Amino acid sequence: MDTLLLNSDAVDENARMDAIIRSVEEAFGAYQRGDVQMPAKSYIELERYNGDFRSMPAYMDAGDWDAAGIKWVNVHPDNPADHGLPTVMGTMIYSDPETAYPLSVMDGTTLTMKRTGAAAAVATDHLAVEDATTLGIVGAGVQSYTQLTAIAEVRPIETVVVADKDSDRIDAFRDEFGDRFTVREGSISDAAACDVLSTVTPVRDPIVSLSDLGEHTHVNAMGADAEGKHELSDEILLSSKLVIDDHEQCTHSGEINVPWHDGTLGDDDLYGEIGEIVVGEKEGRTAEDGVTVFDSTGLAIQDVAAARVVYEEATDGDEGTPFDLVQA
Amino acid sequence: MDTLLLNSDAVDENARMDAIIRSVEEAFGAYQRGDVQMPAKSYIELERYNGDFRSMPAYMDAGDWDAAGIKWVNVHPDNPADHGLPTVMGTMIYSDPETAYPLSVMDGTTLTMKRTGAAAAVATDHLAVEDATTLGIVGAGVQSYTQLTAIAEVRPIETVVVADKDSDRIDAFRDEFGDRFTVREGSISDAAACDVLSTVTPVRDPIVSLSDLGEHTHVNAMGADAEGKHELSDEILLSSKLVIDDHEQCTHSGEINVPWHDGTLGDDDLYGEIGEIVVGEKEGRTAEDGVTVFDSTGLAIQDVAAARVVYEEATDGDEGTPFDLVQA
Repeated sequence: MDTLLLNSDAVDENARMDAIIRSVEEAFGAYQRGDVQMPAKSYIELERYNGDFRSMPAYMDAGDWDAAGIKWVNVHPDNPADHGLPTVMGTMIYSDPETAYPLSVMDGTTLTMKRTGAAAAVATDHLAVEDATTLGIVGAGVQSYTQLTAIAEVRPIETVVVADKDSDRIDAFRDEFGDRFTVREGSISDAAACDVLSTVTPVRDPIVSLSDLGEHTHVNAMGADAEGKHELSDEILLSSKLVIDDHEQCTHSGEINVPWHDGTLGDDDLYGEIGEIVVGEKEGRTAEDGVTVFDSTGLAIQDVAAARVVYEEATDGDEGTPFDLVQA
Repeated sequence: MDTLLLNSDAVDENARMDAIIRSVEEAFGAYQRGDVQMPAKSYIELERYNGDFRSMPAYMDAGDWDAAGIKWVNVHPDNPADHGLPTVMGTMIYSDPETAYPLSVMDGTTLTMKRTGAAAAVATDHLAVEDATTLGIVGAGVQSYTQLTAIAEVRPIETVVVADKDSDRIDAFRDEFGDRFTVREGSISDAAACDVLSTVTPVRDPIVSLSDLGEHTHVNAMGADAEGKHELSDEILLSSKLVIDDHEQCTHSGEINVPWHDGTLGDDDLYGEIGEIVVGEKEGRTAEDGVTVFDSTGLAIQDVAAARVVYEEATDGDEGTPFDLVQA
């Protein structure tokens, strides 16, 4: 028996987005039902290199299937300038929970993009208006691409309005998607007026105001991943139907972390967790809802759920590179 | 740039034991100086499969070099009978701390055996009599082999006395080492009377008594790795110079965990941690010492330290399988 190696391209080619969205949705549901094991992310802080490592182990049981693995991922902001390497690189070990055999070692960076897009799509599916045809994107970096590919799986997106200070990024985004969608450059307000908005920036001062949004815009707040980061004004968070992925992570480092810590926002301002909506304990969008917001921090079970899809797709298609790592 | 894949054979071939012993010794020293980051092992317990996963991330700075990585390892006792797979399988991701690039993905099972043997050798080097020529081994399973190969690097071992209820294991051990050492089958008492004794069993009732030991025997207690396991009588632990690798792990699941929890043994009965001896804060064996004991639970920094040796040796020798995992 071999371990299947899947590099960045192989993960990309085998990441069937429709299946990953359903798998990530099942992960949120399993989390809500208590059918996961997800130890807290543990951090190794390396001040001398201005970087850190994070380990994200998880097990999830979706009922029909279960999956286990660990993602080892870093954030080294000096990498691009000093070493010509990405800021973030991840490696995923995907294991058979029954025997612990390492079924696959795969690039975790591409996987992260896929599962992050999938999380936004799950939230969009439950919270956006049904006939959403316009998607706004603020921040056209590497994580923005899967926002579009994933959300377009759950809503009939036709037009994409992209806001970014860097016109090269807009051009690259248009080059990638111009044949499938009408891609327009726009201001943050233009993007925010769409049916669905995904914010994918690392800002520490909010860049989207309530007046920018449409009356029924659903916002996926994807960018905040550390204390002090937030993209949306407090007014948006306080007046919207506000859904989070995980209370501990979101209050620690998600979109809500800043108003949470200064006392502007509390538990009463949260509608619930996405898992509660997925399992039907709480309703998604109703006719009365206006603006809805999803605060996504990214859970280890999303990686495991996405890795399962990639591994099974690659196995079915005889893709990837088998390697006798264990020699058992 | 590629990630170097090293399967079980490649790890074995590139695990220069003398270098791993020194590297693990430096890890213990760095730990004592506070120059490591080692989040607590996190566990995923899978009752339905009678197994668990453990994640062991670590960073260490030895001064001249530093190293980082994570070992993802399991214990699934039903694997051999039900699946023809080993109970324990590990996968190690060895990363450059400066950029977090995954330098190598290697088999963690063989690596564990090497670094565990190396830990025993470090303790033996500091605690056994100088002219130790006899080594007793109780339990001739897979972990016992590196006890001999490692300890023979630090002491002039000539004769090995092996105790095991399974004569096939004794034969296999003799087949492996009969040409380099005089290998004799013996009782536990015979093994325990040697200059150095390594116990490598999973027992829950002690099998070695004080009267079994020689006057100056140094004991490496390697087997206990979970609550309730211990191999040595309380009398041995209470009357010996007792050295541990880590207070938290040893009191939780090491050789001392049982008498610790029932109150038979306390902090006053511990001589110190191996790192204190390595850095010279406490003496190793002195002329006055009789029996000495090392309680080894295994630290994540040992894996990182050993992985570094294997990776560098493999790189120098152009061994292993390069793979473009990250494609950066």
